[in-house]
Amino acid sequence: MNLIQAPRGFLFSAVAAGVRKDGRIDLGLIVSERPASAAGVFTTNRVAAAPVLLCRRHLAAGRGMARAIVANSGNANCATPNGGRVAERTARAAAQLLNIEPRHVLVASTGVIGLPMLEEQIPSALPRAVERLSPESFEEVARAIMTTDTRPKLAFRAMGRGPRAARVLGMAKGAGMIHPRMATMLAFVMTDAAAAPARLQRLTAAAAARTFNRISVDGDTSTNDTLCVLANGAAGPVAEARLAKALEEVMGELALAIAADGEGARKLVKIEVRGARNEAQAETLARAIANSPLVKTAIAGGDPNWGRILSAAGASGASFDPARASVILNGVTVCRRGVAADFDEEALGRSLAQAREVDVRLLLGAGRARVRFHTCDLTEEYIRINASYRT
Amino acid sequence: MNLIQAPRGFLFSAVAAGVRKDGRIDLGLIVSERPASAAGVFTTNRVAAAPVLLCRRHLAAGRGMARAIVANSGNANCATPNGGRVAERTARAAAQLLNIEPRHVLVASTGVIGLPMLEEQIPSALPRAVERLSPESFEEVARAIMTTDTRPKLAFRAMGRGPRAARVLGMAKGAGMIHPRMATMLAFVMTDAAAAPARLQRLTAAAAARTFNRISVDGDTSTNDTLCVLANGAAGPVAEARLAKALEEVMGELALAIAADGEGARKLVKIEVRGARNEAQAETLARAIANSPLVKTAIAGGDPNWGRILSAAGASGASFDPARASVILNGVTVCRRGVAADFDEEALGRSLAQAREVDVRLLLGAGRARVRFHTCDLTEEYIRINASYRT
Repeated sequence: MNLIQAPRGFLFSAVAAGVRKDGRIDLGLIVSERPASAAGVFTTNRVAAAPVLLCRRHLAAGRGMARAIVANSGNANCATPNGGRVAERTARAAAQLLNIEPRHVLVASTGVIGLPMLEEQIPSALPRAVERLSPESFEEVARAIMTTDTRPKLAFRAMGRGPRAARVLGMAKGAGMIHPRMATMLAFVMTDAAAAPARLQRLTAAAAARTFNRISVDGDTSTNDTLCVLANGAAGPVAEARLAKALEEVMGELALAIAADGEGARKLVKIEVRGARNEAQAETLARAIANSPLVKTAIAGGDPNWGRILSAAGASGASFDPARASVILNGVTVCRRGVAADFDEEALGRSLAQAREVDVRLLLGAGRARVRFHTCDLTEEYIRINASYRT
Repeated sequence: MNLIQAPRGFLFSAVAAGVRKDGRIDLGLIVSERPASAAGVFTTNRVAAAPVLLCRRHLAAGRGMARAIVANSGNANCATPNGGRVAERTARAAAQLLNIEPRHVLVASTGVIGLPMLEEQIPSALPRAVERLSPESFEEVARAIMTTDTRPKLAFRAMGRGPRAARVLGMAKGAGMIHPRMATMLAFVMTDAAAAPARLQRLTAAAAARTFNRISVDGDTSTNDTLCVLANGAAGPVAEARLAKALEEVMGELALAIAADGEGARKLVKIEVRGARNEAQAETLARAIANSPLVKTAIAGGDPNWGRILSAAGASGASFDPARASVILNGVTVCRRGVAADFDEEALGRSLAQAREVDVRLLLGAGRARVRFHTCDLTEEYIRINASYRT
């Protein structure tokens, strides 16, 4: 990662609003000093949290322009009796303090579903947050949105060289309930490149499809998945291809960081499906392997149990010819054209047990499409975290 | 469960063939003394094990008639280089010893995928198995097919009263890689009722759809799922409705036993979706809740974290109105019409922690369809078992 520099014209701050009972910093604020194009990709879960509903409304009402994002951890504001009002009041309070329109404020929440929220808690913490706004505080915001994440997640790209190059800065939180169908839990990306709202939305959706939509921790799609991208144009126009590349690289890095920091994870698992007829087939197969608890527990145990990989692929619903399928584990061919290959199982087991990254490749021999997908191993720690998440 | 009596005209035996390295009994033989109608339901996994392919072929060649089932644990005979030959030779050896046609022998295997098999191992153990055949040894067969199961699974129904009532006896093995889309891992059902092959197949498929297809341990569909039903008519004809009921009850009991004995399971989880528009919608929702690792770890931890239930339903792909959905956990309404209900969380937590069975109900308020689905909690023990399954 390059040295991170905030895109021009963005301010950040984070404070403890008391949503989290442990007193940790739990409220982040991101402000663009000038009107910014805004793009959003949200959860496909039928049960959408109040902040997701508000973001969709505000993006439509604001014609794809926004000025601020308010994000909290500690409570998902989903299935909360007064949830709509909490989100509304948060947006109105921020708008008033920043002297902008409420429809230009986006709101995002993460935490437990179904807990009540005090309506005044976030609004009454916002003045402190506004006071502390600065161009340097982006890492504090990345920390404020953490739940079971073990580290903040930031990614940065400069588009070009020299002091005038436009910048893209992204941050995200992940950990559990990660199986984004549209975006990941919470991710915010800021750029000082200029891009009209429609174009920004198109670039954002395309990048999300190839990054956040290709990771999984546990196959559970959250009710709060939110990706917001703000482009305020402070660095002027940038060629579309260059902006698209920077956005995808930043989102890809964040997605990888989320997979590597999945709840209880000790290993990052890179799954690549090659030789597919088309990308959709490859993605279905990769997703099925990534979501198989048996594949993920075998990897946790350093067991080259490739039969589970083949079985997960077979159960995916995608049609392929098992007699042409090969499996390669950390560079070792373990299954060639549907049957066991000759390999040193003990040596491979030892190397898997030590590896921090495990490469799983499935070759189909049917075409030229290829897809990469990321997940993590499934350990006893995942169970410990989630059996007592609320205590 | 009633006192189990083998259906008339069936013989059973089990021996140690050496497929399992620990020397445990690993080979089961079931023989009908007279020609029996045979019905089969097999895995939908694109990667089907050699015994599954053989069963499909033999059922077609034998026009739905069969005389024997040979089943082994310790090796799934899937993606095994000489797998087809092993299955063929097993059937031929059994046919020769029993003086029947090879196409009237069905073969089933369970265990690790991709391990080589010695072609002579099962054929050379079969003479001992044939010698020991008896009407009483059914429990030994149920034990021979166990892998990580902690107990043998048997179910029995008499169709009517008195000594002449026709009988249905079923046995199954489950434990892991359980997410049957057609049937469960291995299940054999024997009846002395008479039923023509086509009718038996119809009744079998219908019963499997409502029993084995409505359980899940880990969402992984095995390559070896096999359900075989043999009806030898030794007790004469039985009314179709009565036979259908007995088959469904026996399969339902086996399915429940598989869910309760899932790898690492401490609790049986009964999921009921009510008030659905139709059965397909209800089943999609119930399956999604049953497959959510977050729901299952919360239940393992005795945590009434119902937000995860609602979220899993929302991510299922089935459309429903969250604002009309309610959730009831062990009789306590925790979510009413989409938002948190007022309930004593600590008391419910304590009762969940102690319960051996947890009832999850999702009410949709959209129609009259209802579906029951069974799964188990997800514990650290599941991870321990599967991180080192082969060692």
